[in-house]
Amino acid sequence: METPSAESLLSQTVSRLADESSYQQLFHSCRDEEALPSARVLQQIVDVCRAILFPGYYGNERINRQTIKYHIGVMVETLHKLLTKEIQAGICFSNQRRGIGPDVAVSLSEQFISHLPELRELLATDAEATYNGDPAAQNIGEVIFCYPGFRAICNYRIAHQLYLLKVPYIPRIITEQAHSETGIDIHPGAKIGHHFSIDHGTGTVIGETSVIGDYVRIFQGVSLAGAKLPPDENGNAIRGVARHPVIGNHVTIYSNSTLIGPIRVGDGATICGNVWLTHDVPAGETVHQYNAENENTII
Amino acid sequence: METPSAESLLSQTVSRLADESSYQQLFHSCRDEEALPSARVLQQIVDVCRAILFPGYYGNERINRQTIKYHIGVMVETLHKLLTKEIQAGICFSNQRRGIGPDVAVSLSEQFISHLPELRELLATDAEATYNGDPAAQNIGEVIFCYPGFRAICNYRIAHQLYLLKVPYIPRIITEQAHSETGIDIHPGAKIGHHFSIDHGTGTVIGETSVIGDYVRIFQGVSLAGAKLPPDENGNAIRGVARHPVIGNHVTIYSNSTLIGPIRVGDGATICGNVWLTHDVPAGETVHQYNAENENTII
Amino acid sequence: METPSAESLLSQTVSRLADESSYQQLFHSCRDEEALPSARVLQQIVDVCRAILFPGYYGNERINRQTIKYHIGVMVETLHKLLTKEIQAGICFSNQRRGIGPDVAVSLSEQFISHLPELRELLATDAEATYNGDPAAQNIGEVIFCYPGFRAICNYRIAHQLYLLKVPYIPRIITEQAHSETGIDIHPGAKIGHHFSIDHGTGTVIGETSVIGDYVRIFQGVSLAGAKLPPDENGNAIRGVARHPVIGNHVTIYSNSTLIGPIRVGDGATICGNVWLTHDVPAGETVHQYNAENENTII
Amino acid sequence: METPSAESLLSQTVSRLADESSYQQLFHSCRDEEALPSARVLQQIVDVCRAILFPGYYGNERINRQTIKYHIGVMVETLHKLLTKEIQAGICFSNQRRGIGPDVAVSLSEQFISHLPELRELLATDAEATYNGDPAAQNIGEVIFCYPGFRAICNYRIAHQLYLLKVPYIPRIITEQAHSETGIDIHPGAKIGHHFSIDHGTGTVIGETSVIGDYVRIFQGVSLAGAKLPPDENGNAIRGVARHPVIGNHVTIYSNSTLIGPIRVGDGATICGNVWLTHDVPAGETVHQYNAENENTII
Amino acid sequence: METPSAESLLSQTVSRLADESSYQQLFHSCRDEEALPSARVLQQIVDVCRAILFPGYYGNERINRQTIKYHIGVMVETLHKLLTKEIQAGICFSNQRRGIGPDVAVSLSEQFISHLPELRELLATDAEATYNGDPAAQNIGEVIFCYPGFRAICNYRIAHQLYLLKVPYIPRIITEQAHSETGIDIHPGAKIGHHFSIDHGTGTVIGETSVIGDYVRIFQGVSLAGAKLPPDENGNAIRGVARHPVIGNHVTIYSNSTLIGPIRVGDGATICGNVWLTHDVPAGETVHQYNAENENTII
Amino acid sequence: METPSAESLLSQTVSRLADESSYQQLFHSCRDEEALPSARVLQQIVDVCRAILFPGYYGNERINRQTIKYHIGVMVETLHKLLTKEIQAGICFSNQRRGIGPDVAVSLSEQFISHLPELRELLATDAEATYNGDPAAQNIGEVIFCYPGFRAICNYRIAHQLYLLKVPYIPRIITEQAHSETGIDIHPGAKIGHHFSIDHGTGTVIGETSVIGDYVRIFQGVSLAGAKLPPDENGNAIRGVARHPVIGNHVTIYSNSTLIGPIRVGDGATICGNVWLTHDVPAGETVHQYNAENENTII
Repeated sequence: METPSAESLLSQTVSRLADESSYQQLFHSCRDEEALPSARVLQQIVDVCRAILFPGYYGNERINRQTIKYHIGVMVETLHKLLTKEIQAGICFSNQRRGIGPDVAVSLSEQFISHLPELRELLATDAEATYNGDPAAQNIGEVIFCYPGFRAICNYRIAHQLYLLKVPYIPRIITEQAHSETGIDIHPGAKIGHHFSIDHGTGTVIGETSVIGDYVRIFQGVSLAGAKLPPDENGNAIRGVARHPVIGNHVTIYSNSTLIGPIRVGDGATICGNVWLTHDVPAGETVHQYNAENENTII
Repeated sequence: METPSAESLLSQTVSRLADESSYQQLFHSCRDEEALPSARVLQQIVDVCRAILFPGYYGNERINRQTIKYHIGVMVETLHKLLTKEIQAGICFSNQRRGIGPDVAVSLSEQFISHLPELRELLATDAEATYNGDPAAQNIGEVIFCYPGFRAICNYRIAHQLYLLKVPYIPRIITEQAHSETGIDIHPGAKIGHHFSIDHGTGTVIGETSVIGDYVRIFQGVSLAGAKLPPDENGNAIRGVARHPVIGNHVTIYSNSTLIGPIRVGDGATICGNVWLTHDVPAGETVHQYNAENENTII
Repeated sequence: METPSAESLLSQTVSRLADESSYQQLFHSCRDEEALPSARVLQQIVDVCRAILFPGYYGNERINRQTIKYHIGVMVETLHKLLTKEIQAGICFSNQRRGIGPDVAVSLSEQFISHLPELRELLATDAEATYNGDPAAQNIGEVIFCYPGFRAICNYRIAHQLYLLKVPYIPRIITEQAHSETGIDIHPGAKIGHHFSIDHGTGTVIGETSVIGDYVRIFQGVSLAGAKLPPDENGNAIRGVARHPVIGNHVTIYSNSTLIGPIRVGDGATICGNVWLTHDVPAGETVHQYNAENENTII
Repeated sequence: METPSAESLLSQTVSRLADESSYQQLFHSCRDEEALPSARVLQQIVDVCRAILFPGYYGNERINRQTIKYHIGVMVETLHKLLTKEIQAGICFSNQRRGIGPDVAVSLSEQFISHLPELRELLATDAEATYNGDPAAQNIGEVIFCYPGFRAICNYRIAHQLYLLKVPYIPRIITEQAHSETGIDIHPGAKIGHHFSIDHGTGTVIGETSVIGDYVRIFQGVSLAGAKLPPDENGNAIRGVARHPVIGNHVTIYSNSTLIGPIRVGDGATICGNVWLTHDVPAGETVHQYNAENENTII
Repeated sequence: METPSAESLLSQTVSRLADESSYQQLFHSCRDEEALPSARVLQQIVDVCRAILFPGYYGNERINRQTIKYHIGVMVETLHKLLTKEIQAGICFSNQRRGIGPDVAVSLSEQFISHLPELRELLATDAEATYNGDPAAQNIGEVIFCYPGFRAICNYRIAHQLYLLKVPYIPRIITEQAHSETGIDIHPGAKIGHHFSIDHGTGTVIGETSVIGDYVRIFQGVSLAGAKLPPDENGNAIRGVARHPVIGNHVTIYSNSTLIGPIRVGDGATICGNVWLTHDVPAGETVHQYNAENENTII
Repeated sequence: METPSAESLLSQTVSRLADESSYQQLFHSCRDEEALPSARVLQQIVDVCRAILFPGYYGNERINRQTIKYHIGVMVETLHKLLTKEIQAGICFSNQRRGIGPDVAVSLSEQFISHLPELRELLATDAEATYNGDPAAQNIGEVIFCYPGFRAICNYRIAHQLYLLKVPYIPRIITEQAHSETGIDIHPGAKIGHHFSIDHGTGTVIGETSVIGDYVRIFQGVSLAGAKLPPDENGNAIRGVARHPVIGNHVTIYSNSTLIGPIRVGDGATICGNVWLTHDVPAGETVHQYNAENENTII
């Protein structure tokens, strides 16, 4: 900011950028005492959940059978406090706050915590399925400690529980954090059964209204994508309608396949890699790139 | 470094590694007073840009209409200082420095800043297009705050502006940072119109000489890839020649498709997923995996 | 934790979570004086390796020909100390510790270090191949400093050397860190020749028993995937058997192709993008999506 | 926590420490939504005040005459936010909160800020006096930037302003921070005129009800101490009564002297070092160790 | 390191500094697996002790009567782990390690912890005495939270307990940390009764063999100093002999007084400020600067 | 900043504070490319000096006789770089920069480094004297590692060397850092012989023109203070004139004594505690509080 002309160029730019007409659509005006959700705190929340769910693998590694109750007591209290604050921030950010007091966030946070034991049970089945499905895995500990697929499923299961409690925004941010770390993008609204595994997983997308059965195994680059819906009578996008695939039990989907629209894939079916699939698949069938041609393509 | 033999093994290794013949090709000799570009500072620069462009979403969340001018004034000054330093580092790193004084970096930094208002306008159209295209999005704020596709486009638009100013290296590092966070790899040299959106996006690649029109929507795993060029008469790779696709307006490209070479995709065309496309597509047409076979394949 | 009922809900949850039957499968009981491998320290180890291998690009950027021996001496000592500790942690975590004293970790760490000069030579060929293959690259320095493909190969070559020394876990964590940063997932067990390059790379997977020749070039979204093996007579997964592709020299594989099973791709072959390939490819041949149909498909 | 007996020793200790009868006098029970004052934030508050009061010496050193208004605008807003929160914490900690809403803290914070211009004027006189009094000082900048005496006076003047606004606790913590850094302990309740200077200062104490005129200069180890008061009729200490010395204008007090009780030292007097002084001193007089004997000693 | 001559000057200096004859007296050669005591960890240890002893004032401020047992359980475990490691480091540093296994450190750490309830009781009397003695104190919470005298006594009582357990070095480092923060230097070997208080305290020194009764109150700048002992027959300093003052109960010592040598100050005596005292004082007597002249002076 | 009136109060305050007439005396206008000296970097510089001077006690504790040359090589280079930058900052801050290029700072930094071997020799004598003088010290390692007196002397000796090279400001900041940590305030201009020791030390002050012989021992609270000089003919303070005590060899000065003005204390003299001394002391004599009365007092 040295020569007069440079000074004036920068000053003009400041004026243009501070002009209300420039920023109005892209400005978030936070009411007093309201904070935006914090990516950093949400990461901490997921870390505390992991430390509670998988003691000794995450969090304090010296935890033992004598002291575990102290540690879980302190961590649950920490989780309660952090989560309550973020739930409030999410409610504020969604503009749904009218008439909603802080008690709601406290209660939602408690309800989430009360479901942690079930989350642990489900995740135990996912770890087992991942280990059984990957000849390269040495043991279940390795799965819990280093597998990105398992990590993404863990974030999803946490986020899905918050989604069921109708907490706004927070679930999405939690799955997006796993997305950034692992390349696996599971919408918190998807419904996924037990013994679920994702191998490698980079590029895998599971959309909002997907339904996945038990014992399903998915590889990298697989999309369970939404059909493009026609707009409503006013020309607006219709939101919340079922528009993603429904996958049965014991299904395997190989890398880079795209399943699009509310199609049904029957129990025990196999979808090979690089398939563009827009129609139903009967139970037990195998679909290859060269037999996947669709009469009833939706696009 | 305990037993004599271990000591001597390590000492020998140090000697081999410090031998000039070993490191000479992989050694960066920095002249005095010259620093390498800093990934950390470039991340800060992008963060400051976001805080200027989307006040209240990034940076100080308590900003309000009264104080916004103070905040933007201070942030623009900070940006100017940090960016000037990194531009100098980029010039140094590219060995283009001969005869280029620090004034050049100061001036390039100022020119970049003077384009921020236009960047904000463009990004507003991208946010709008992203929101309109995704039934899962709750509102524009969610897009700005949590969508990786929008985040990657934001880094790209910043980097592209620096690319136009012929700043070396820095643009590429900025888009690579988005690549690492989001899996979306947009070369700063690509030309992209307004109302651009990328959904999910992991694995998407947009190459250096790609040209993309307005209202284009792209999904995960899509590549706009460069044709492999024959070497020049001396056997060296030819650099800077147009070798990527040219995409018209209102085009949609579904997941995992590869468009390769300087092909043209006409306005309003749809490319379904998992397509390997090496030929032109007329306006309004839809290309599927089973009708994409290429007579004039370039590979 | 305010109203009595909430208190009791949380207390009950703590009790359920601290109940041994709930956590027993997901609990890591660390013996005294034993630590888990540390992701943070392993990141440091990779950073120190980079600083040793590419002086001036990573680590202290003011290193010069006079002081390089001091710097490498100090960095090798640091690497030795950090790596020894992590190797011990890996051995502990793998439960292979019975009868293995700390001297083993010291010795493995020294052996790894003694291979650094060869690693540097190999990586120099990879950097050269990357530069030659990408018309968008300005010079080799840019490749070393900003290319995610080169970064992933660097982590792989470090991890592969540790894998050859039979260090458990640590190699996998090192390649998973590159996976998270770059979306490129190379198993440390893969065998890869010199002059190897990966462009863009997000979603690329190279499985445990893959074998890759010299001068191979791979793009984003490519999978060298393992065939699904039948279980052994006891119904358990068979581990460690060759089940991934073998790729010859001078092969190129374009984006999003899946090569699955122990197939052989001959020297000089080209695999175009979006191909699902389950059979051998003769030397020099080009495979497209429309000529890839497999008689002998393995799935 | 290994052998059973050790376990049981530690468990017993936990039980004893968690027993209410053990901790009850030393336990701070914080009501919900109430935080303790934060030493870290109070340090930040003092740093922001310094950056506002002495632009360019503290805070952003690149501030210039064009940008100073942006910087001060942002810093005043930051100060307002941080100080409001700490004032609330102080009110909570003092148990004076009954019936006091958050508006009180907002208003007290604003009133403090509105006195910053006067604080700056006063501190300018102190810096000038310090410079004039010390032949070792090179210029006023050195005084502002490195003199512990000036630093302690700065904390005192900030704290005294808050004390006048009857903010509880916070003023004391601010002067104690200077005490820890500089060894100079000035109670925020003391009244001190302009052109005040302390040289070296370690061990200097200025008690709660001290009154100091203009142009006073004090050295290290000097105490303006309180007389010991008899308890009230119930045997409790009487608090808030004037019990410290009253010092006139242009007085100098040399190192390690103790002035105790509500004595009066007249204008222009000099107290040499190592004196124990418990009686009044007429204007202009010099007191040495050997002429300081007190008939009317108060202890 | 630019011009040849500068290079050679620096290189010569490196050689001189790395020459064994230069560093041999000032070199600490750490045996493998041995660490020096860590100032940072010792600070953490004191912080954890404070959080255990004064719940809600230090550590997690949201602790409540329901969760206190979890918190104390976790904190005691943390303290045990950190302290064991530092005790080992202290033993190593003192060269007393021959024949001392790690069990000794574990056991010393447990013994220290088992005395925490008594430490809490003693410190409660010190807090009460400090509050009662200072008319400027608002309540006991203020004493615990902000009084440097109380902080120094707390470090001393922790250190003294470790001193009684014959832990080398660690106690001294803990009291030196309080010395640095508060200017109060209490040797861990001193014996101090209950209801002890120090006001202001900067410059106060209490030597190794001092003995202090109950209800004693000391001000800033007071020294309980050791007599200079004649060397032993070999000319070496005699260590560990009683050479500091013995102070009775209910004694007050005002600022900047020096009490030197193994003198006795009787119960209820008062020592005024700035006194140089080298002889015994009978119970109940008051000593001033002008009546302190010593016949039997020891220096 | 909520209600209009508060807004306007704060806005007015911002305007008053940003008004040039308010800040002009207290504003530091930094020229471009010039930084203020950095307290944080100067602390690092002292830490690096300690690590070079006392290998194994400070810095990397695993240094050994084989690797020490690598470590010292790297540390000397680091010191050179950091110190050069701070010297430049000091020259800039002192406004002495006219006509002084960056080469001067480089050269001063090199000269300082070339004196490190002598500094180490001197400090070895100080450590020895401290150990011999204190019966509470266990060994020389404890002195180097934890004694505040030795720490302050170390900062002083570093600062004095820079003072001799006429580096402005930096020496003072380095001794002020020791002052803050230890309460010992030694002006970098003082001349101090070998085998110097300070015990406890809080409150000790050694002024700019003090001269101290060899084997001198000083206790806490001692001041070697400057006489107050009459102003020059223009009424300005005279700077740089000898105005502090000159202390011979083998002198001991006990706690809290003040020696003021250019007096001479002969070899082997003893000054007891709490003395106010303004006249010369013959060699070998002992001065007590009651025989210190000064005929020729200078105040």
